[in-house]
Amino acid sequence: MRVTVHRFGMSNPADVSGLRRLIDAGELDPRHIVASIGKTEGNGGANDFTRALATISFAGAIAAATGERPEDVTERVALVWSGGCEGVLSPHATVITRDDSIDAGEGGGLAVSVQRTRAFRPEEIGTLAEIDEVADATRRALDDLAAAPDEVHYVQVKGPLLTPAGIRDAAGRGATVVTTDPNASKAYARGATALGVAVALGEVDRGSLEQASITKALDRFSTVASTSAGGELVACEIVLFANSPAAAPGLRIGHAVLRDVIDAEGVREALRSAGLDVGAAADAEQRERIAAVFAKAEASPTGEVRGRRTTMLSDADINYERHARAALGAVIASVTGDPAIFVSGGTEHQCAPGQAPIAAIVRGR
Amino acid sequence: MRVTVHRFGMSNPADVSGLRRLIDAGELDPRHIVASIGKTEGNGGANDFTRALATISFAGAIAAATGERPEDVTERVALVWSGGCEGVLSPHATVITRDDSIDAGEGGGLAVSVQRTRAFRPEEIGTLAEIDEVADATRRALDDLAAAPDEVHYVQVKGPLLTPAGIRDAAGRGATVVTTDPNASKAYARGATALGVAVALGEVDRGSLEQASITKALDRFSTVASTSAGGELVACEIVLFANSPAAAPGLRIGHAVLRDVIDAEGVREALRSAGLDVGAAADAEQRERIAAVFAKAEASPTGEVRGRRTTMLSDADINYERHARAALGAVIASVTGDPAIFVSGGTEHQCAPGQAPIAAIVRGR
Amino acid sequence: MRVTVHRFGMSNPADVSGLRRLIDAGELDPRHIVASIGKTEGNGGANDFTRALATISFAGAIAAATGERPEDVTERVALVWSGGCEGVLSPHATVITRDDSIDAGEGGGLAVSVQRTRAFRPEEIGTLAEIDEVADATRRALDDLAAAPDEVHYVQVKGPLLTPAGIRDAAGRGATVVTTDPNASKAYARGATALGVAVALGEVDRGSLEQASITKALDRFSTVASTSAGGELVACEIVLFANSPAAAPGLRIGHAVLRDVIDAEGVREALRSAGLDVGAAADAEQRERIAAVFAKAEASPTGEVRGRRTTMLSDADINYERHARAALGAVIASVTGDPAIFVSGGTEHQCAPGQAPIAAIVRGR
Amino acid sequence: MRVTVHRFGMSNPADVSGLRRLIDAGELDPRHIVASIGKTEGNGGANDFTRALATISFAGAIAAATGERPEDVTERVALVWSGGCEGVLSPHATVITRDDSIDAGEGGGLAVSVQRTRAFRPEEIGTLAEIDEVADATRRALDDLAAAPDEVHYVQVKGPLLTPAGIRDAAGRGATVVTTDPNASKAYARGATALGVAVALGEVDRGSLEQASITKALDRFSTVASTSAGGELVACEIVLFANSPAAAPGLRIGHAVLRDVIDAEGVREALRSAGLDVGAAADAEQRERIAAVFAKAEASPTGEVRGRRTTMLSDADINYERHARAALGAVIASVTGDPAIFVSGGTEHQCAPGQAPIAAIVRGR
Repeated sequence: MRVTVHRFGMSNPADVSGLRRLIDAGELDPRHIVASIGKTEGNGGANDFTRALATISFAGAIAAATGERPEDVTERVALVWSGGCEGVLSPHATVITRDDSIDAGEGGGLAVSVQRTRAFRPEEIGTLAEIDEVADATRRALDDLAAAPDEVHYVQVKGPLLTPAGIRDAAGRGATVVTTDPNASKAYARGATALGVAVALGEVDRGSLEQASITKALDRFSTVASTSAGGELVACEIVLFANSPAAAPGLRIGHAVLRDVIDAEGVREALRSAGLDVGAAADAEQRERIAAVFAKAEASPTGEVRGRRTTMLSDADINYERHARAALGAVIASVTGDPAIFVSGGTEHQCAPGQAPIAAIVRGR
Repeated sequence: MRVTVHRFGMSNPADVSGLRRLIDAGELDPRHIVASIGKTEGNGGANDFTRALATISFAGAIAAATGERPEDVTERVALVWSGGCEGVLSPHATVITRDDSIDAGEGGGLAVSVQRTRAFRPEEIGTLAEIDEVADATRRALDDLAAAPDEVHYVQVKGPLLTPAGIRDAAGRGATVVTTDPNASKAYARGATALGVAVALGEVDRGSLEQASITKALDRFSTVASTSAGGELVACEIVLFANSPAAAPGLRIGHAVLRDVIDAEGVREALRSAGLDVGAAADAEQRERIAAVFAKAEASPTGEVRGRRTTMLSDADINYERHARAALGAVIASVTGDPAIFVSGGTEHQCAPGQAPIAAIVRGR
Repeated sequence: MRVTVHRFGMSNPADVSGLRRLIDAGELDPRHIVASIGKTEGNGGANDFTRALATISFAGAIAAATGERPEDVTERVALVWSGGCEGVLSPHATVITRDDSIDAGEGGGLAVSVQRTRAFRPEEIGTLAEIDEVADATRRALDDLAAAPDEVHYVQVKGPLLTPAGIRDAAGRGATVVTTDPNASKAYARGATALGVAVALGEVDRGSLEQASITKALDRFSTVASTSAGGELVACEIVLFANSPAAAPGLRIGHAVLRDVIDAEGVREALRSAGLDVGAAADAEQRERIAAVFAKAEASPTGEVRGRRTTMLSDADINYERHARAALGAVIASVTGDPAIFVSGGTEHQCAPGQAPIAAIVRGR
Repeated sequence: MRVTVHRFGMSNPADVSGLRRLIDAGELDPRHIVASIGKTEGNGGANDFTRALATISFAGAIAAATGERPEDVTERVALVWSGGCEGVLSPHATVITRDDSIDAGEGGGLAVSVQRTRAFRPEEIGTLAEIDEVADATRRALDDLAAAPDEVHYVQVKGPLLTPAGIRDAAGRGATVVTTDPNASKAYARGATALGVAVALGEVDRGSLEQASITKALDRFSTVASTSAGGELVACEIVLFANSPAAAPGLRIGHAVLRDVIDAEGVREALRSAGLDVGAAADAEQRERIAAVFAKAEASPTGEVRGRRTTMLSDADINYERHARAALGAVIASVTGDPAIFVSGGTEHQCAPGQAPIAAIVRGR
């Protein structure tokens, strides 16, 4: 297997020119695209439709290039978008291909597996049922890569949230949803899917979880899951990254845990874990070697960062996720020298409270 | 002269408990307070009244301690607040005292001078008249400290903006204001006051300026001015900091220019300029030595940071100043380890476009 | 008893010039001020400090006029502010005086009683304890006016919410608060205080309530309570309005229930209930007779208004309370011809879900 | 010619189920669709991509029904979206068909003509060149309907604004744009296209206009133009509505001028102008006869409404257009009983300052 990673900027959520250029130049075979992970310039909330626009646009562009129908592309390719380009965060996409026809050679490298769960009913979102389905999908990814849990450095999960329509649908059938607030449902959705990853990787014992654990028992978590929720999905998509001897060399992934949203040292540690040792910040040559950075941003649950009060949690104008992404995005970019990084909000059951996962993919020299 | 600098957090814009504690403990003589520079948790826009609340509260607390009337305190002490605690920025105040009865001893140190202009009519805000008044006030500060322009590292100016009431008042008298949009008037007010500092320090030739230069001729600027505008003021307050042989040792100020809002190296350079050489980030002992950091945050005028598109300028939900403060505040805090830093928005005529001033006050060992 | 009602605009939350003019002109005896109910131009959220600024400013102005200390004024006078001037809502204050030395004469008229509860600990906010204290205070008001429950047309309650500091304080003592989200605590605080009024007026049976009823058992409510919560308070203030034979004639109060935020007919009904019959809208002479309008705005819990989907509940940029206040404020002003109306957000246990109370005070001819 | 008007709600900006249902039920021939005018639930600003998503979705659905290519549909059909569903405004579309094969019969009725300008370069947006092109397109519409200017009741124009990409493009070619602020460019674009309509209808003399008139000489305006600007367009689309003897009976259009955003009487006047006389508000039967309402919302340029200060213009959190749309949308809905109304922001050169156009299409009995 050979995995490639291409990152390019987008001038708006419907901009597929970067993707087309890569395909036209023959740098990327559209039939091998298995996932795209990107940022769009919406508000990141329940009413952020930039993700849907980017999904339609990318599915259309890939379909045009492969001759598939757009609906088949969205079944085959994980199109993961996180809304919210606060601070310096730059709208972009990171497109991942996997070519199974390539012999791995020696040394090993970055491997990726994409899996999907079944569709969920609104009343299943944020529940144990979602945990179990995500855990199964994660196990299928491990099998696919013949990878051990400790070779896994990043598991991106994107799943559905509760939309007003879904809430009405459930109510009409007499079914109970975890919350009737669409924006609040994101926390349950992210938490349940993260716990699914944690269960599959052995980080959390499934027997210790009950419904009330979700978003509450925050001492149970995964350190490599990064989950998000959007109104345009009905099933969960899992994109699992590992270093594997079965993958061709060229790219390596590593990860670390961010102590807080200003933990520049955590950023450097993730790069080191992927094989790149930067000083205070990446120099020009090192900057070229950083293929992608994926991180989660979390507002401190106490409201304090390094002993100082922040106002993220009490601000009624700007959602706390937006404050947290703005801060962390800038800190990561100050180390990597590149604002085209994936920083997504909400870390329920992803690292300990206040902490957050970060992963980096680095090119070999 | 001896200057002291005390920094403390605030639980809300009316919280004076930190100030009272310092006074009660005898650490700070309220009669020697000449300025306070702080952040409050409003939106930083024309309708941010947290600055007014903090001003009333601090004036009241100082008056209670000295026996002065509150209105006399606001005449004597420069109370400078910047609204907007985006990202990790923490509401706090930095209170500066100056005691002229203390002999400087040898070695020199931090000196400060506070000056005021006359009150401006609405139609003068953001005009050449404001430039000239601020230049005069800055020259008075240089005289007061017997300082040369190159010993000056930071000049904080806070002046009025155009309020709806002021705009109506001018219109009623047939006078023309620079803009009828209160939020837009901040740019003119900040630009004119920065040019006033630049003229006094010899950074810009007064003869080269005309009314149309303000906010337009951005190649003329000061690298040490930091200016802001608030609806609660009618005159400008200038707080000029320099290192001077006439001041007692203990504190030193330095400054640098930030290339962009993720310029962590610029932060380190400002600390070095003040005598503190940190590695990637300050360690625990170094952190204690950092008495205050003052910086300006600027959205890149091209919309790009390090070659990547940001969305600060096109975002209709969050003002670009808020994006910029969130980013820079986090980057500074990632170096200093302390989110209680003063980061204020808008850099018209303060460094070259896209760049911004940063100053640091450091304690000696 | 004679009650007067004076309404005037404010140019900012610290503007007391309208109040001063009334006092200086002898139209209003500051010693007789018992309450002020007004709107300030903040965001209406947990971080809206315009209420605190207005409170400090009004207390100071009244104290300057009467010779009291400001802290005694805030004990004696209920200063009730609702933040959020969305749409056309205009910042203003309605100052209410009560002079017990005046003989009522015949005919009866508007009567008012102001009462206070004890201070609450953070863990009591939004609980049964708060219900009981508010019920007691409401009963004291009924006694004070010798009024029957059906003579009561409006009961304004303002109480504390959970601030980040209060949440930390409770956590430090091992006490449990109803929610750790400051903005979310407003719902509990408003609900509990409304139920307190409902219990005292016989609208709800206290025995039917348990802790879990608060914000959940929404079929129990008052139709005359209007409650709000702010971070600047520790106790609840109750301002109860009734028509009473014991009050001098001149003003009458009435009320109605708004079916939704575009219920212009409900507005007309409240005016009729107070003795003013307008056609489609008040004419110039009728407009002069409307002394004050107090209403609550509620986002439809289904998200729908008149069978059409609205986006209030799914909007992550603008809080649903702000959408609701903007809509209702404009509809009321389109009937009364005056945007200086008190519209406050959040109707937990104030009328049936989706409905809201409205009261009007009208001058006799 | 026969014109039909169908209005239906949308559950999100990509929801075409309402359109599909009408087509599947045979109520609407997709080949006869000439325009769709609707509201989407974005922020209405330069970074509102819900309009683009709705456009892609509607073009795709019409193309699937007619067998056309989506790009041909967007050439043939005017897809006009206004972002921003503040207050009660409900996301919806009003689809207009025109069938030239139908004989008009007698009595006359609603006629519509859709025209397009050429594409504009960024430096032409908001200039005299745009005025002239829009005037030409408007004259073509008058010719198409053989209508006199006084038979025209509503002219919807949607044109391009300045995007960051367009601004960079112009800068790269050394061309000057009217403003480098994307959000600010909306005012110029709306103003120029409104003046184009005014010139064609004889409301404004073209010879009296120069470049500096645009957004400044506000005493020149159209009372029937309603213009908006979006980043997804490069040319202007004009949809002109008139009552014409050449159109089949069944629908009538009328219009009025709104004095301010709470002018309920103006709403009633527009309905009367279209033949529907409601009392204070439409009753159930009258409500059914209202086919569509199109209006513009304007913040008062003085900041005052009926002599009271509003905070629309000084609010840094919520754009003034959003305040104005929230207010007017609620007032219109309070009269019509239906929140699915088209209210769009910004009235530069559309009625006198502070006033705004409103049009209504009413079904005959």
